[in-house]
Amino acid sequence: MLSVDFSFAERFVSGEQIKSIYDEVFQAHKKIHEDKVFEPIGWLDLPKKYDKKVVDEIIIEAQNIRKNCDVFIVIGIGGSYLGARAAIEFLHSNNYNLLENTPKIFFVGNSISSDELYEIMQICKNKSVCINVISKSGTTTEPAIAFRFFRDFLESVYGKSGAKERIYCTTDSGSNLKKLADEMGYKTFIIPQNIGGRYSVLSPVGLFPMAVTGIDVKKVLGGALNALTDYSIYGENLNDCYKYAAIRNLFYRQGKVTEIMVGYHPKMHYFTEWWKQLFGESEGKNGRGIFPASAIFSTDLHSLGQYIQQGLRNLFETVINVKKTNNDLIISESQNNADGLNYLSGKSVNFVNQKALEATLLAHTNGGVPNIVLNLDSFSEENFGYLVYFFEKACAVSACLLGVNPFNQPGVENYKKEMFKLLGKPNF
Amino acid sequence: MLSVDFSFAERFVSGEQIKSIYDEVFQAHKKIHEDKVFEPIGWLDLPKKYDKKVVDEIIIEAQNIRKNCDVFIVIGIGGSYLGARAAIEFLHSNNYNLLENTPKIFFVGNSISSDELYEIMQICKNKSVCINVISKSGTTTEPAIAFRFFRDFLESVYGKSGAKERIYCTTDSGSNLKKLADEMGYKTFIIPQNIGGRYSVLSPVGLFPMAVTGIDVKKVLGGALNALTDYSIYGENLNDCYKYAAIRNLFYRQGKVTEIMVGYHPKMHYFTEWWKQLFGESEGKNGRGIFPASAIFSTDLHSLGQYIQQGLRNLFETVINVKKTNNDLIISESQNNADGLNYLSGKSVNFVNQKALEATLLAHTNGGVPNIVLNLDSFSEENFGYLVYFFEKACAVSACLLGVNPFNQPGVENYKKEMFKLLGKPNF
Repeated sequence: MLSVDFSFAERFVSGEQIKSIYDEVFQAHKKIHEDKVFEPIGWLDLPKKYDKKVVDEIIIEAQNIRKNCDVFIVIGIGGSYLGARAAIEFLHSNNYNLLENTPKIFFVGNSISSDELYEIMQICKNKSVCINVISKSGTTTEPAIAFRFFRDFLESVYGKSGAKERIYCTTDSGSNLKKLADEMGYKTFIIPQNIGGRYSVLSPVGLFPMAVTGIDVKKVLGGALNALTDYSIYGENLNDCYKYAAIRNLFYRQGKVTEIMVGYHPKMHYFTEWWKQLFGESEGKNGRGIFPASAIFSTDLHSLGQYIQQGLRNLFETVINVKKTNNDLIISESQNNADGLNYLSGKSVNFVNQKALEATLLAHTNGGVPNIVLNLDSFSEENFGYLVYFFEKACAVSACLLGVNPFNQPGVENYKKEMFKLLGKPNF
Repeated sequence: MLSVDFSFAERFVSGEQIKSIYDEVFQAHKKIHEDKVFEPIGWLDLPKKYDKKVVDEIIIEAQNIRKNCDVFIVIGIGGSYLGARAAIEFLHSNNYNLLENTPKIFFVGNSISSDELYEIMQICKNKSVCINVISKSGTTTEPAIAFRFFRDFLESVYGKSGAKERIYCTTDSGSNLKKLADEMGYKTFIIPQNIGGRYSVLSPVGLFPMAVTGIDVKKVLGGALNALTDYSIYGENLNDCYKYAAIRNLFYRQGKVTEIMVGYHPKMHYFTEWWKQLFGESEGKNGRGIFPASAIFSTDLHSLGQYIQQGLRNLFETVINVKKTNNDLIISESQNNADGLNYLSGKSVNFVNQKALEATLLAHTNGGVPNIVLNLDSFSEENFGYLVYFFEKACAVSACLLGVNPFNQPGVENYKKEMFKLLGKPNF
């Protein structure tokens, strides 16, 4: 499914250097698989041990929504929306809402922007609307604010009894939101307790919105299961997932402290956003961590390209190369050839995109920026699931190599505490 | 219009340190204003010296398009689309195309994604379509490919004679595209020769698409003119623009090599993208430069927030605080208060957003990340123009302080050369 090309990275780290870190990788592997040093670790076996009844239920409810709703509102922040949004754009399109798909899907409650809330409520007018509020606690400020507005909106249109048929809660079993849902009669999906937010895309958190857009979530889980199998074994040769973790850690020790995750299609933008949370929250602590940045090429070759080619040499890139597009197009012949493009007549656009990718690998590595290339054949559900698990596992191992806890995020509380004080929240 | 708060930065640089760089700032000011060491410098006086007849023509043509077109396609990459897109989202919305505005606006030719081209062409079916191809040369690969497809599309629907009434070219006076336009009878807007791509937003490159969405471009230029006036003088106290350049350069010398441009509204995302090109291409050369990153808060406080709070201490942030939103909303009271949010009942969403901003300034500076805050009262045309000019000027001065040419981008050619070789382009 996934093949990783390390050749553009191995110009910057020797085989000896990679070998020198083998034992640390093994210790990380043991910490995760045997010693269970860090919690929550439920994501590790999730593709094998997920509750099949819950997934079937997700699929049935999603089909109902697809039949009955024009607009599906997903309320959540951070890990509660990034995975689903990444999947929907990767597997459909960044133009999903404009391509006359039903239901249209909007992500709110991931900012405190009144304009955003107002506009999405405008769009919902005279439409059949369902909402999925995703919050482990139900008390996170951003989604809680959005949920108040959209619940009021639904109740004003459908009444309390009509609204309750249109509200789906994805939450922890003992949460305030779960209690509210039980009291009001909202349908609920429970997030397994041993799964953290940024590792939750393969739980109901990500699967339900995916299913609402018609994604075959069993195929996504199947892809992840293949990755689980491929990356569970520690052998004499590092598997590709562990090797990625090892090499990026060696780069860090060389002073390459920023990693740019690169895609070659606009529909991959939110995958890179999901990745940024996964690695940023897992690694960025104790004064350490690789800074996660992202780019879409060739778009950003005309923006960040100059810096990457010739700026400060503290960067490396990880490139996701999806080789086949859904709709390829052939470049036509032009009579006057004013654009000088006739040498490409008869070639496909995706062929040119592939050559841009190959060329950029050469240019950037020649400029002193190592590249790791993840090759996938197509934008399939299996490949999405596989890629997700690849990065989840690589992230856990990477954080262990860095000497930090991959699964906590103590620093996220700091702005919240200051905000609660300023807002006069009781007990702050 | 703009007031800059340096207090969260001055905990990290002393008044003495700022003074120590005064002379370098003065040298930079002289290089730009008097010695004209670097070219092209046409952006410097543009808000004062722009061709008023051209702007009037832009407004008239834009009104025609607003009357007659459902869809307006902007073909361009890098500086040929980022400024216009930044303006349209900043002044309207990131949801512009969904809010039943006419014409809808799509940006293509900024990638080599066949799916993207295919999808936008699908959306154009049975719509009245006009296109604006923006390319200094007319031979840049990405927009040239897109233009072939959209020209063929228009000609297949309207015939050659109908199509020519719907094609607008923004290009250099002597370019291949200009020649083609003259031959075919396309309407043309000329890009003044002494203005580079990333400094072109206040030229027809940015103004025409803005005007098509109903933005008052004269107000944008008026705002820029105010900034030009405010930031042209070198006095005993640095003006805010020069002080921003000075302080960010001092941070760089302290090892703070990544700057995160932060907005608090989803509609500011493309402004940060425009800024990333401006600074990345201007500074990232000769093995130097501040890496330009971006974030939208509070969204990304649940993604990059952990890293910023507690990761590697090589960051600083520049925060754009737009205080007033277009549509503020009041948070309602909830009977059961399951979300614990009733302490906010009666408060507005934007009030909470402001407190999140203030809280984050405290949390991040306490965590060792300096913050510079640019305060604006609202999302107005004047403020957009002012902000654009603030950053253009700051960027030129910053690059001079860094000892690099602010206006060239030699590294952007590297991937192109490799690509042309791989594609078998004649003479490569």
